[in-house]
Amino acid sequence: MSNSFSRKHSSSPAKKPFLIGVAGGTASGKSTVCQTIIERLGQFDVDQQQRQVICISQDSFYRELTPAESEKAKLGQFNFDHPDAFDYHLILKTLKRITAGESCEIPVYDFKSNARIEGKQATLYPADVVVFEGILVFYTQEVRELFDMKLFVDTDADTRLARRVLRDITERGRDLNKVLHQYTTLVKPAFEEFCLPTKKFADVIIPRGAENLVAIGLIVQHIQDILRARSEAPGFERRRTVNFQLSPEEEDLDFSQHRQNSEPCLSRPH
Amino acid sequence: MSNSFSRKHSSSPAKKPFLIGVAGGTASGKSTVCQTIIERLGQFDVDQQQRQVICISQDSFYRELTPAESEKAKLGQFNFDHPDAFDYHLILKTLKRITAGESCEIPVYDFKSNARIEGKQATLYPADVVVFEGILVFYTQEVRELFDMKLFVDTDADTRLARRVLRDITERGRDLNKVLHQYTTLVKPAFEEFCLPTKKFADVIIPRGAENLVAIGLIVQHIQDILRARSEAPGFERRRTVNFQLSPEEEDLDFSQHRQNSEPCLSRPH
Amino acid sequence: MSNSFSRKHSSSPAKKPFLIGVAGGTASGKSTVCQTIIERLGQFDVDQQQRQVICISQDSFYRELTPAESEKAKLGQFNFDHPDAFDYHLILKTLKRITAGESCEIPVYDFKSNARIEGKQATLYPADVVVFEGILVFYTQEVRELFDMKLFVDTDADTRLARRVLRDITERGRDLNKVLHQYTTLVKPAFEEFCLPTKKFADVIIPRGAENLVAIGLIVQHIQDILRARSEAPGFERRRTVNFQLSPEEEDLDFSQHRQNSEPCLSRPH
Amino acid sequence: MSNSFSRKHSSSPAKKPFLIGVAGGTASGKSTVCQTIIERLGQFDVDQQQRQVICISQDSFYRELTPAESEKAKLGQFNFDHPDAFDYHLILKTLKRITAGESCEIPVYDFKSNARIEGKQATLYPADVVVFEGILVFYTQEVRELFDMKLFVDTDADTRLARRVLRDITERGRDLNKVLHQYTTLVKPAFEEFCLPTKKFADVIIPRGAENLVAIGLIVQHIQDILRARSEAPGFERRRTVNFQLSPEEEDLDFSQHRQNSEPCLSRPH
Repeated sequence: MSNSFSRKHSSSPAKKPFLIGVAGGTASGKSTVCQTIIERLGQFDVDQQQRQVICISQDSFYRELTPAESEKAKLGQFNFDHPDAFDYHLILKTLKRITAGESCEIPVYDFKSNARIEGKQATLYPADVVVFEGILVFYTQEVRELFDMKLFVDTDADTRLARRVLRDITERGRDLNKVLHQYTTLVKPAFEEFCLPTKKFADVIIPRGAENLVAIGLIVQHIQDILRARSEAPGFERRRTVNFQLSPEEEDLDFSQHRQNSEPCLSRPH
Repeated sequence: MSNSFSRKHSSSPAKKPFLIGVAGGTASGKSTVCQTIIERLGQFDVDQQQRQVICISQDSFYRELTPAESEKAKLGQFNFDHPDAFDYHLILKTLKRITAGESCEIPVYDFKSNARIEGKQATLYPADVVVFEGILVFYTQEVRELFDMKLFVDTDADTRLARRVLRDITERGRDLNKVLHQYTTLVKPAFEEFCLPTKKFADVIIPRGAENLVAIGLIVQHIQDILRARSEAPGFERRRTVNFQLSPEEEDLDFSQHRQNSEPCLSRPH
Repeated sequence: MSNSFSRKHSSSPAKKPFLIGVAGGTASGKSTVCQTIIERLGQFDVDQQQRQVICISQDSFYRELTPAESEKAKLGQFNFDHPDAFDYHLILKTLKRITAGESCEIPVYDFKSNARIEGKQATLYPADVVVFEGILVFYTQEVRELFDMKLFVDTDADTRLARRVLRDITERGRDLNKVLHQYTTLVKPAFEEFCLPTKKFADVIIPRGAENLVAIGLIVQHIQDILRARSEAPGFERRRTVNFQLSPEEEDLDFSQHRQNSEPCLSRPH
Repeated sequence: MSNSFSRKHSSSPAKKPFLIGVAGGTASGKSTVCQTIIERLGQFDVDQQQRQVICISQDSFYRELTPAESEKAKLGQFNFDHPDAFDYHLILKTLKRITAGESCEIPVYDFKSNARIEGKQATLYPADVVVFEGILVFYTQEVRELFDMKLFVDTDADTRLARRVLRDITERGRDLNKVLHQYTTLVKPAFEEFCLPTKKFADVIIPRGAENLVAIGLIVQHIQDILRARSEAPGFERRRTVNFQLSPEEEDLDFSQHRQNSEPCLSRPH
C-alpha cells in the first residue's frame, strides 16, 4: 500500500497507461489469450520488478440485479450477455481513473449468488499496460474510444459452443439440456445483436483464440516494447510486480475456483 | 411388384419425375424438412392414391469401406462427411434411372457396422416427385444438373452443433467428448470445405430448417401443384401410394430404429 | 372507380389479402424480382380479369424532409437508407388498411425534389395478393408481423455494388466518385446496421435475385394458387385487372422515368 | 554491388530472414499495407544502414502465357486471379533461396504485354525481413509453411470493388463496363474459390487495410524488434539500405508507372 500511497503523492505526474481492449464471443478464447499474454510477460518480468501489466474482466462490472432479476438468474433465464447486464457507468468511471494513472477499486462479484460481495473491493493499482476484456467492451462509444488498441478474438460460433459445452459440462457439472437451451435462447441472440457488430471496431482480429501463438506473440512483444520504452524514459519510477491486489479486508477471499477455469481475471461461469 | 411390372411393360412412356435436391450441413434440419414435406403431402394423399412423392437420402449411398477404413470408422476417425465416403457412381446411376421413370434398387446400409447389408436391396418405384437429400448432393456437377429445384437448408453452425450434440448424447447415448471431438476434427472441416461452397448452387435457401413452416408450406404447395398437373394430364395412370418398398427378401428388415431419430429416410447416426 | 365504390358498399366482407414482404439490400434485385413476378402472373391473367396482385414500394413512404435535410439531400449527404428516412406511421396505417381489404391512398414521391408531390395521391385498390418491397420492410416489428410471407433477396455486396454503379452511371448519368462515396459512407453502413440484421426474419431467402428463375417460379406459382383458391371460393366477386391506379387529378403524372429503371414500383433513384 | 559480393563470400553464415506473408483479395489494401510498413521502417532506417526489409509481390511470378492465353488476356478474358496463372515452382524456388539467406533473381513482368521481359531480371539481396504479398500466397501448403507470420488483409467485398473500380477507371482509364464484367466473371469467383478459403491459415487478420494504422503499427514495431535483435546479435554484419536492386542491364527499366499506383512492389494492373 505504501507504493500506492507514494504514487498518489508523487511529484512526477502519473503516466497514462496503454489500454488494450479484447472483445469476442463467449468461449472465443479471449480470457485465455489474456492469460497467456500475462504469463508470457511474467516469465520475462521476474527479475525486473519494473513492468506492470494488468488484466481486468468486464465480468467484474455486472450490475446489481433486482430481486425479480435475481430469481430469473437462478433459473438461468437472466441474460448475462445483454448490454443491460453491465454497469457501464462504473466501467467508464473505472477506465477513466485507470487512464488517468490513478488507483481505483472495483467490485468483487460472486458468480454463485450473482451479486457483488458487500464490503469487498479489489484494488487496481496504476500499471503501464491495462488489458480490459469482455464480450461487450467495444459496445459503447465512450468506452471504445478509451482503448489504444482494440483486439477481437474471432472464433467460429460452433467452435465456441463446443468449448462452452465442454467447459460447462465437465468443469462445472451442469446439465447439457440447460446449457444448450441457455446458449440458444440467450447467449447466441445477444452475441449476434450486440457483440458481433462491434467486430468492425477492432484494429486487429485474432483468429482461433488461444492456440494462435503467432498473434499472441505479436501482442506480447508489443507490450514488452511499451514497457521497455517506459522504463527507459527519464524520471521513471520503479514499480511493483504485483498488480492485482485485494484490499486488506478481503485477503481471505478465495479466488482459486475462478483460476481453475483457466481464466486470468474474475470470470463469469454463466 | 405387379405394379412395377405392369409399369415397365406399359405402353405409355414413363414421365420424368420432378427431382428436388435438398442439401445442408449436419443437423441443419434437412431430413426433418423432407419428413415434414412428405407428412403434409400424405395427409392430403390418403384418399387419392394418385400422387407419388418419395424421399431418398444420400446416406444410402455410402460406399463400402476397406478393412483399414472400417477400423478407423469404429474409432470414430473415418470422415463420413467427406465426398470420398460416398459412391457417386451409384448415386448418378440411380438418379438417372429415376429421372428416366424407371424402378431401381439401392443398397440398404447398416450404420452399426458401417457397411451395406449383403443381399438386401431397397426398391425405388417411379414417382412424380423425388426428393434427394444429403450434405453433399450438390457436390458433383453431374448430379447437380439433374435437379429441377435445389434447396439449401441454412442453419447457423452453432445451432446445428447444439442439435447434433443433443441428438447424439440423449438419443444415441454417446460420449460428449467424442461427439465434440468428431465434430471439430471431421464434421466441421468437411462442411466448410465441401458442403458450404455448394450453397451458391441453391435456387432457394431455407433458413432455420424444420421450424420454418412458411418455407415448407411453399415447397409442399409446389409439389401439390406438380402432382395436380400430372393427374390432370391425359393418359395418366393411377399410381400406388406406397413408394418406398423393400424387395420381398428383406421385408423383415427393421427400419424402426432409423425412424425413431425422426428422419424420414435411412439416415446416418454418425 | 365504380368498382371501388361498389366494393366499399358490397355486402360481402372484403377478404384479407395475402401480404408478401420482400426485403434486400440496394440493387439486390428485389424490385426486378417483384416485377418479374407481376409480369409472369399477368401473362396468365389477361383473359380472366379475376386475379389481383399489386406491388408497393417502401420508397413511396419516404417522409417529408426538413429544409436542412433537403439541403443535405441535394448534396447527396442525406441517408435515404436509414430507417429515419421513412414514414413508418404511414406505412403501418396503409398496410393495416390493405390487410383490412380497404382501398387507400399513398403519397406520390418526386425523386428529383426528394419530396411528396403536393395534392397528388396514388390509390391502392383491394387486391388478393399484395407485395410490399423495400430495403427496410422487415425493420419494425409491427410491420413485420403483418406479412404472411417474408422473402429476402440475398445478393453478394460486391455484386450489388456492381449493379448499382452500372445503373447509376449508365442509366442515370451520375458521377462515379459521388456514386462510390455515397455508397461507402451512407448506403453500406446503413445496410449493415439496419437491413442485414432483418434477414433472420425471412421465411425464404432468394439468392442472386432476378436471375433466379426457379425461386421466382416458386413464388409465382404460390400466388397463382392463392388466386385460384380465392376465385373458387363461394361469394367471390370479379375484380379489376388494373390495380395500381392514379386518382383522377394526377392522371397526367409521368411515371415513365421510373419504369425505365426496370422497377415495377415507384422506385428511388438515390 | 560490392556489398552483395562481399556478402556472398562472407565467412559468417547467412541468417534466415523472417518471412511474412500478406494475402487478401484484390484491392483489399495489401500492397498499400506493405508499402506503409516499408515507408515507416524507412524513416527510422535512414541513418542506420543496418536494417533490411524487402517486399516481393506474387505478381512478379505470373507464368508465361501460351499464344492462345495471350489472346484471351488481351480481351480481358484470361483469369489472372486463378492459381494456374502463377509459376508456383519459381515462387517456391525463390522463397527457399530467400529463406536460405541467398541472393536470387526474379523475372521482371510487363503488365502491358502480359509477359516476362526477356533478358531482364530483378535481383533480390538477402534481407532480415522479407514480406511476400499477393492474393494467393497462402494457396499452396509448401509456400504457406515457409512463412513465419501470415497476415490476411480483410476488407469487405464491396469496399474492395469500390476501390478497384475507382483505380481502374480514374487511374488506368479503363471502361466501366469492362471493369465490372471482368470483376464479376473472373476476379470475384476466383477470390471466393481460391483466396477466401486461405483466410483460415492467417495468424493475424488486419481489417480494413491501409487505413488501419494500429495494426500496421503493430507489424512495423514487430519488424523493428526483429531488426534490433539481429543488429545486437554478435557477428552481425552491417547491411545495405537499398534492398530491391535491378541487375545492371535493366537499370533503365522504368518502374515509375507501378509506383504511381501506390503499390510498393511490381503490381499488376489487371
